[in-house]
Amino acid sequence: MASIGNVHHIQNKRLTKHITISLTSITRLGELGIIKIMEDSFGVSDRMVVGFGDDVSAVRLLGSRIAVLKTDMFVGSTDLPPGMTMRQAAWKAVVANVSDLAAKGIRPMAGLVALGLPRSLKKTEVQEIAKGLSEAAASYDFPLIGGDTNESNDLTISIALFAVANKKNLILRKGAKIHDVVAVTGEFGSTSAGLKSVLKYRISWRKMPKGLYDALYRPRARLDLGLRLAASRAVTSSIDSSDGLAWSLHQLSESSGVGIIIDEIPTSKAARDFAQQHHLRSRDLALYGGEEYELVLTIPPENFSRAYRAAKGNLTRIGRVTGRFRGVRMKADGRIVPVKKKGWEHFRS
Amino acid sequence: MASIGNVHHIQNKRLTKHITISLTSITRLGELGIIKIMEDSFGVSDRMVVGFGDDVSAVRLLGSRIAVLKTDMFVGSTDLPPGMTMRQAAWKAVVANVSDLAAKGIRPMAGLVALGLPRSLKKTEVQEIAKGLSEAAASYDFPLIGGDTNESNDLTISIALFAVANKKNLILRKGAKIHDVVAVTGEFGSTSAGLKSVLKYRISWRKMPKGLYDALYRPRARLDLGLRLAASRAVTSSIDSSDGLAWSLHQLSESSGVGIIIDEIPTSKAARDFAQQHHLRSRDLALYGGEEYELVLTIPPENFSRAYRAAKGNLTRIGRVTGRFRGVRMKADGRIVPVKKKGWEHFRS
Repeated sequence: MASIGNVHHIQNKRLTKHITISLTSITRLGELGIIKIMEDSFGVSDRMVVGFGDDVSAVRLLGSRIAVLKTDMFVGSTDLPPGMTMRQAAWKAVVANVSDLAAKGIRPMAGLVALGLPRSLKKTEVQEIAKGLSEAAASYDFPLIGGDTNESNDLTISIALFAVANKKNLILRKGAKIHDVVAVTGEFGSTSAGLKSVLKYRISWRKMPKGLYDALYRPRARLDLGLRLAASRAVTSSIDSSDGLAWSLHQLSESSGVGIIIDEIPTSKAARDFAQQHHLRSRDLALYGGEEYELVLTIPPENFSRAYRAAKGNLTRIGRVTGRFRGVRMKADGRIVPVKKKGWEHFRS
Repeated sequence: MASIGNVHHIQNKRLTKHITISLTSITRLGELGIIKIMEDSFGVSDRMVVGFGDDVSAVRLLGSRIAVLKTDMFVGSTDLPPGMTMRQAAWKAVVANVSDLAAKGIRPMAGLVALGLPRSLKKTEVQEIAKGLSEAAASYDFPLIGGDTNESNDLTISIALFAVANKKNLILRKGAKIHDVVAVTGEFGSTSAGLKSVLKYRISWRKMPKGLYDALYRPRARLDLGLRLAASRAVTSSIDSSDGLAWSLHQLSESSGVGIIIDEIPTSKAARDFAQQHHLRSRDLALYGGEEYELVLTIPPENFSRAYRAAKGNLTRIGRVTGRFRGVRMKADGRIVPVKKKGWEHFRS
């Protein structure tokens, strides 16, 4: 997500392990508290091309070229749902990083891997991790060129990606303009449904419909779409939906200083089926999920058809940018209701 | 250390927590096993400028310019000695990364921080981590431009550094030539003595002599010396001593395909005092320590005075490179004895 990172996962991601939450020192401090402490302490350097509050970091190279850097850490105790293999965990650790570059329209050039491995890990599991990392890197066409391996009490897969880009091609979170179309790639809700399925309803992953299984255990980053959309020069702002669609929309809204009004969200059939079965609203699964690696973009109306062609039709208009209010609202059941700024917190119940 | 990373710490670093070792799956697999699994799986890309077995990784940019990348992870359960504050831990996490760039003669340009924070951490400790990170980055004159924060069962501070360099200025581990002088910066033994003091002899860090305390809790990387030595163009190969002097010498020997014969090693007065007090050999403290961030270099005899001036006198000749054998040997007590290829393992006793 944002800023120096996915800090709000501290409050939320543990839900992949425990449904109930007990308040603790760190949770009382909260995501914004931790982000603020780090950013205030680090300070803004004049070498920085991108501020703390975006999906990637960058420093100036020669001319208009910039070095883009990204790090995202996968932690076993909080990011590993029941049934996920080491190979899938390693794959997902890479995908989470690639997705942020995809949202900025940047192709990864090389990656590093820092591992923290529990003593109890078996050789075959180490091999699975290596395989998952390599498969993901190959899938997104960049080499893993080095890293660091350590013993840890908690499985840790920390990826760092490097890329070179032209500053003017970088799509930031800020840049959304009033009257822009808000659009997304793909469909939403499957990951959230899959996670609820194994955690809340304790349904074995073996019985999970393929749509939910693939979303939760084998997610993909929209790198190709992100690169195509960036090349189309039709997009004014962009973010990935890895912290939940609602959260991402709020980030775009805040970064760009605009309001967003949502008409309708494309939800997956698997998520709708799951919602119906468990008497949930598929809209909530779509909005307040997370770990779903779609792109959320704003596009001037006159550019939309160009963006649509660039995305080969995998682009859905879900709303528009407005100057009439700040924040995110949605048309639902004939009314305009606020979209809450939250990620995983709905699991608290 | 080497390759995809400090894997041998898996066998060794836990000693900062437990003196005795029980064999486990990962320890049976061993450092070389894990490195091999990762490297075999990643494969060597033609974009890589530096092989897996060096202190940093690099990919080609335009012309002779290369992007240098480094990641090293600090893990609480294995890297945090008793008495170390969060501020010191964060400082040390940065120093470990900077030291590897120093050994290659490269100035860091920007850094990322991925954090795994235990729930039990207090706000003041988060502030200390921020402070330690910022102080270290400022000390080595590069900005921290972003990162990621997560909850973890084990304190994790994963740093990634980025730099740009000219390929021909990069000093690798390979390159040592027969008859070269082997030289080091600084003095050895203090870190090892400090660690033994708190772990083996259970002496409070409050009672530790300043020399040992500073080495263990406030280490510094030799960035300025590394840059000066690289600029002198007097050096044929280089490595830092973070995994122990003996280990580093063996790495230079293996990477360059030569033998190394050691005459004498500069040991700190604090380490000698400690050795005398506890009936240890200061030579063993110097050779088989670790987390000591000095530089170990090879220099053609005709370049030595130039290197010595570049280092402002902080350079000690400790031996020479030979073609008569492979590996590392040492003159000790009137005999030539092999220097063992080990880092922390002497704590096993």
